[in-house]
Amino acid sequence: MKFKIRPATKEDCKEISRMIMELAVFEKMPDQVKITHEDLERDGFCQNPFFECLVAEVPEEHKSTEGFTVVGYGLYFYNYSTWEGRTVYLEDLYVMPEFRGNGIGKGLLSKVAQVGKKKRCVRLNLSVLDWNAPARDFYIAKGARDLTDSEGWHFIRFDGQNLDNLANEAPED
Amino acid sequence: MKFKIRPATKEDCKEISRMIMELAVFEKMPDQVKITHEDLERDGFCQNPFFECLVAEVPEEHKSTEGFTVVGYGLYFYNYSTWEGRTVYLEDLYVMPEFRGNGIGKGLLSKVAQVGKKKRCVRLNLSVLDWNAPARDFYIAKGARDLTDSEGWHFIRFDGQNLDNLANEAPED
Repeated sequence: MKFKIRPATKEDCKEISRMIMELAVFEKMPDQVKITHEDLERDGFCQNPFFECLVAEVPEEHKSTEGFTVVGYGLYFYNYSTWEGRTVYLEDLYVMPEFRGNGIGKGLLSKVAQVGKKKRCVRLNLSVLDWNAPARDFYIAKGARDLTDSEGWHFIRFDGQNLDNLANEAPED
Repeated sequence: MKFKIRPATKEDCKEISRMIMELAVFEKMPDQVKITHEDLERDGFCQNPFFECLVAEVPEEHKSTEGFTVVGYGLYFYNYSTWEGRTVYLEDLYVMPEFRGNGIGKGLLSKVAQVGKKKRCVRLNLSVLDWNAPARDFYIAKGARDLTDSEGWHFIRFDGQNLDNLANEAPED
């Protein structure tokens, strides 16, 4: 199947928002999605955007059963390693189920790697859930390393009241 | 001990670079540090900076045995959750050994949380090594959750030749 990968525009945010929800439904956590397409428009298309996004588009004749032509996305942003410098972080990689097996996911992943390399990023990082074997196998097959397994890195998060408490205890300027 | 936390300036990059190396030596991986203070100057003080940094400074009369007054730093950047929106990621938190126990690390952490809240970030994320019990205990005691333990998140990384291969396989525009 022919497909095209291109940078998302502000006008794609409704489609991206739809797919974010599809992914959350697949992950059985649709209630977790708090953001709207307006948030994406504001945060991704401002002067110092919080993220960048690529979308995969199929020709009109291959549109989905529900009529969609934007059928996948890769949302990423830039991070920084104090050892190696610029890195790129892939937050979400999604392809609609009926379009899988056509190389679209691989195309999005490779394109994010290419965009990152152009910005002199030396790493492409991402996270997967340990029970999501297809995703883990996909990345490992492409040459990625699992740093939680090999080096013991753990994710730590402050949010909600804990984050508020922390912020409120900050020393005066 | 009195200390002050303030945003780093370009002129602090030599001091930050020195402490990045001290942290890597503590972690027994000094060979991993590839970046210089010039890289930090370029990447942190440009139009769309790759990171922001806070430094902790003590008065001249409390300077370190080697004569340093900048004795800690917290280096962070902004990420994005497609479920909850803006987040802040703390890449490094470091206080020179002889200045520990004075609340400087807690001050830096709280200040990063406060800066993040001002930007409407709803999460403060970071990573620790499983064998670094003092660091893990410090964050957990302040209310953080270990998402690798509780939800099974694993870090995945492409770098070196694997990243080059991926980038080279990107579909044509």
